[in-house]
Amino acid sequence: MQYIQPVNELTNAESVIVGVDVGGTKIAAGIVDAHGQVIGQVMTATDTQDPERTLHSIASAVRECIETAGIAPARVRAVGLGIPGMVDPERGVCLLSVNLNWQNVAVRSWLEQELNLPCVIDNDVCAATLGESIYGAGRGARNMVYLSLGTGIAARAIMNGQLYRGAHGMAGEVGHLVVMPDGPLCRCGACGCLEALAAGPALALSAQTAIAAGQETQLKSYLQRQGTLRSEDVFAAAADNDGLALRILRQAGKHIAYGIYLLAMTFDPQIIVIGGGLTMVPSPLLIEMRARAEYLLAQSSTSRTMFSAETLCISSMGRDCAIIGAAALVARSNGQHTREKQ
Amino acid sequence: MQYIQPVNELTNAESVIVGVDVGGTKIAAGIVDAHGQVIGQVMTATDTQDPERTLHSIASAVRECIETAGIAPARVRAVGLGIPGMVDPERGVCLLSVNLNWQNVAVRSWLEQELNLPCVIDNDVCAATLGESIYGAGRGARNMVYLSLGTGIAARAIMNGQLYRGAHGMAGEVGHLVVMPDGPLCRCGACGCLEALAAGPALALSAQTAIAAGQETQLKSYLQRQGTLRSEDVFAAAADNDGLALRILRQAGKHIAYGIYLLAMTFDPQIIVIGGGLTMVPSPLLIEMRARAEYLLAQSSTSRTMFSAETLCISSMGRDCAIIGAAALVARSNGQHTREKQ
Repeated sequence: MQYIQPVNELTNAESVIVGVDVGGTKIAAGIVDAHGQVIGQVMTATDTQDPERTLHSIASAVRECIETAGIAPARVRAVGLGIPGMVDPERGVCLLSVNLNWQNVAVRSWLEQELNLPCVIDNDVCAATLGESIYGAGRGARNMVYLSLGTGIAARAIMNGQLYRGAHGMAGEVGHLVVMPDGPLCRCGACGCLEALAAGPALALSAQTAIAAGQETQLKSYLQRQGTLRSEDVFAAAADNDGLALRILRQAGKHIAYGIYLLAMTFDPQIIVIGGGLTMVPSPLLIEMRARAEYLLAQSSTSRTMFSAETLCISSMGRDCAIIGAAALVARSNGQHTREKQ
Repeated sequence: MQYIQPVNELTNAESVIVGVDVGGTKIAAGIVDAHGQVIGQVMTATDTQDPERTLHSIASAVRECIETAGIAPARVRAVGLGIPGMVDPERGVCLLSVNLNWQNVAVRSWLEQELNLPCVIDNDVCAATLGESIYGAGRGARNMVYLSLGTGIAARAIMNGQLYRGAHGMAGEVGHLVVMPDGPLCRCGACGCLEALAAGPALALSAQTAIAAGQETQLKSYLQRQGTLRSEDVFAAAADNDGLALRILRQAGKHIAYGIYLLAMTFDPQIIVIGGGLTMVPSPLLIEMRARAEYLLAQSSTSRTMFSAETLCISSMGRDCAIIGAAALVARSNGQHTREKQ
């Protein structure tokens, strides 16, 4: 990318990257060092009233994060941004983001002018995939898949050492794979998509539906108190051994396992890294997901060749994953990670 | 590959490649010109008694094909071989081929010594995928998937302009994806694999099972006459409007469509080319396959972005597909097709 200058050995050793996780409700900006460690971060609410206000809140978060960390602006090599939506990374334009209410927003040029720093943007799952590939569990793997489980479900793959986008930038969109044809309606228009069955909002909705149908659960009191349920509530209730919450998480884990099975059989990766909001705590979802994926992949001699218990791993980056991924966009584009040079 | 010498402009214009389809029952060797046209071929039975006899029958086929075509041996640039099984193309070794009864056979070195010609070997589906990518329907597509429907079912993908093999050389092995958990036993040990439901032998077996259960069909007379059924019989009976044969082919088409759906959703290819023995004639299998794949991919706004009627096409190479694919291994390894340079 043209704005990023080659950095000499000395400067490089001292330089940092600002990684920005641009979410629909909050923006997290962090200082990331050469080892992929977040050495300081700030968080702010996302102003989605209009695109320019959103861009202003991003710029403020970046500035604040640099100031708070006490880093001299000259030490910041570049800013990487992971955006939830369709992104044209070459042109630096966000084509569409439902969460941010963006359509054809020239993010890179606006921010570069405002911040006077080179910027790199990409889709957030692409960014997280690169983050795991450069700094995380996928380090050293020429072929890996990253599966993000959160408000949405999506995967991306590193193939022959390169991020693979597909013909329409949609490769790995297993969240919208129909796995239960008579399942619940998904926001994409299909019924029974993996996302409509197992993403964060689906877990909360399942609980609300069960409560409405008269099922006994401690989630009822959460609902009465809050007026609505979040996936976090389901995880909390499951940790407290609530029967409904346990059933919901196990069922979701089973559906996700099928997605993992398909990703393994098509991409044949060395490693599948699972990350995102639903993986932050050990839970029956992750236990069931692993057990079921191992069962599915043990069925055939073909898949047994491709898969062992070590193939599947949970990201160890936790909540920093999105910031580190955004920083990885810069590391990659600068050729720091030679496997990713394109 | 080290044995292949660079060819100068003049020689290149006149040189040909010998492409060899090494099957479990027959070996077909053909002369392929620079445009991927088969300009002459010979066919011989495969002697699978021991690996050396098989190699001798391959060498004989190559020699005979060159002689029959009246080509001066100096004009033959190299020999490409597509082998049904696990192949290490770098070392030129076939690791395992159940059909050929081969295990760790150093195919390339043996043939190069015997024929005094450079040889390139690879898995037959990899070869066919390259063939479609270089000379066929996938020409010009940076991302394509080739799905082979025959005695087995398998797919391979071209991604970012390169053949993608995966971590264990198994990427695209959708033939052993379980699509009906209570389905028939597959040779891989699983039940209800796509291959056990829709590959050639499965079609013949379905018909035999139905006849044993007392179903009326003209295939009964085929069975009485031949003692067994082949998939070709099912296609012939369907062409004659036999009810059972039509049902079997439609059902197979429906199962294959699910495989196409998964390949589209994971790889997001520009084009999906379908080839192999089951695609040689227009049939209810292909009609149902297309209709069902289009239905599945029309369900979600996400998949609609990725798929149009033009995405799916049937190979136009017919029975020459395997020979042309084998020749493509040479064309690719020699950098003739720059997109494929690795």
